[in-house]
Amino acid sequence: MKYDPEKVLFAVDLAGTLLFAIEGATAAISGNLDVLGQMVLAFATALGGGIIRDLLIGAVPPNSLRDWRYSAVVFTGAAIVFFLHRFVRGIPNGVMIVLDAAGLVAGTQKALIYKMHPFIAILLGTITGVGGGTIRDMFLVRIPTVLRADVYASAAMAGSAAMIVGRKLGLPPTLSAILGGVVCFGLRLISVWQHWNLPRVAG
Amino acid sequence: MKYDPEKVLFAVDLAGTLLFAIEGATAAISGNLDVLGQMVLAFATALGGGIIRDLLIGAVPPNSLRDWRYSAVVFTGAAIVFFLHRFVRGIPNGVMIVLDAAGLVAGTQKALIYKMHPFIAILLGTITGVGGGTIRDMFLVRIPTVLRADVYASAAMAGSAAMIVGRKLGLPPTLSAILGGVVCFGLRLISVWQHWNLPRVAG
Amino acid sequence: MKYDPEKVLFAVDLAGTLLFAIEGATAAISGNLDVLGQMVLAFATALGGGIIRDLLIGAVPPNSLRDWRYSAVVFTGAAIVFFLHRFVRGIPNGVMIVLDAAGLVAGTQKALIYKMHPFIAILLGTITGVGGGTIRDMFLVRIPTVLRADVYASAAMAGSAAMIVGRKLGLPPTLSAILGGVVCFGLRLISVWQHWNLPRVAG
Repeated sequence: MKYDPEKVLFAVDLAGTLLFAIEGATAAISGNLDVLGQMVLAFATALGGGIIRDLLIGAVPPNSLRDWRYSAVVFTGAAIVFFLHRFVRGIPNGVMIVLDAAGLVAGTQKALIYKMHPFIAILLGTITGVGGGTIRDMFLVRIPTVLRADVYASAAMAGSAAMIVGRKLGLPPTLSAILGGVVCFGLRLISVWQHWNLPRVAG
Repeated sequence: MKYDPEKVLFAVDLAGTLLFAIEGATAAISGNLDVLGQMVLAFATALGGGIIRDLLIGAVPPNSLRDWRYSAVVFTGAAIVFFLHRFVRGIPNGVMIVLDAAGLVAGTQKALIYKMHPFIAILLGTITGVGGGTIRDMFLVRIPTVLRADVYASAAMAGSAAMIVGRKLGLPPTLSAILGGVVCFGLRLISVWQHWNLPRVAG
Repeated sequence: MKYDPEKVLFAVDLAGTLLFAIEGATAAISGNLDVLGQMVLAFATALGGGIIRDLLIGAVPPNSLRDWRYSAVVFTGAAIVFFLHRFVRGIPNGVMIVLDAAGLVAGTQKALIYKMHPFIAILLGTITGVGGGTIRDMFLVRIPTVLRADVYASAAMAGSAAMIVGRKLGLPPTLSAILGGVVCFGLRLISVWQHWNLPRVAG
């Protein structure tokens, strides 16, 4: 059997989609939503960020709507939470942090492929990473966590920026991507460990 | 006078738009919005779902912005509610249920025309049906009804799926569309009559 | 040095973006957001309306994402509020009213260039003007001000309509644009001065 990096990446992508969908469907329980609400939140959390990015760069229909397997995976995730919620108490934080870093790197990469300015690619990578959770929070009528809670999006931006600086310095794309992922992942780990919070202006 | 099915469909579409606009403008009253807020809610409720669908399949500018008559009808609906709200106490539920089924069928159809995978066409048909009401609820800072209240969106999905199964089984397009509409309409009628609700996970 | 109207317009556009960003970042303080939330609100307030308009007319990637200088200006605005919030107590109302009128005129113009029907161009001009503030309010889980508070959006619509009537009557584009801006600006000044409010239906 030949090793095919494309297929590995696609499998990883689907696995990540499943875990984000589980996270979204779990959030629906606390909002007292029915099973359909769960499916909608799973969909928005897992695919929302990428869909917004694709709309903004003009890649329509968005990738996750062109390939039915993404939606199928999302609804599988929602079904898992519905039937097995006693056993699935959300995904461990460490796993989500790795996934976030991976999603961010993929988002930045795609923006670069569509020839966006590096500065804008950082923005779009960040939107890919935090967009889904933001839509989820707006459906639940909460101020989006990403706007108030922790260094989540800042780590995403820093990772995205590190990846682009790596590319500009002539690092090979794979190495730059890994660099970006590690920066994002590392910053979040440290921030959880050190209880970092971004400063804010007193109201 | 020759009978032209295109024109009949267009007239039905505009009539549906008018009724959705009236529903949206009526919701604005309970939110204590001014006359412009009424117009915005009428617009979002009547045309929001279709606009999101068109953005997602890459049919821009969306149909309802390409033809000025849709907006004109929407603002007529808002004006009717403003001036005649003593007489227009919302649209009877039965009428809205028929309209929802019709909108859903049209949305699924359009997704198929744009060569989306049948599974995605079901999703897009559902978004066409429930998108407008969801935007309306978010403007009013409510958790969208569709996420918590009843079998509304599930009936939409079932109808959309029936329509696509019909097509796959070789039924003519018109018959498949009618089948989808009837399934959606029937499920909602039964659910209202039997007080069905979707199951949910206890929080 | 040669006078170049294109460059002057671009400079004015960036200056307006900066002031809208400052307004958005200031709103973030009252929502108790951290510095990243400030940046997001600054971005949404300053560029959100134009991005929605560009998505709707099919001008993707939106102009403000194609040129990195818009984002750079937005983040400068957020930084100014963060570091100098003691001195920057929001922008004077009069300045914002002029800017709103200018943004509206630009939005209507762009819709006309993309060959939208004049009636739709009015809508799109209004969305350009009020879209950013609406996203900001939804992030802060408030009913959008524009839906309930004052003649803001109505003045925008009237200005946009005046501009289009001017064009139809054969006035030169620049004069029509100025006419639209003056109508929008004048209506808002008078409405602030006379405490005008739009009528609403008693709930």
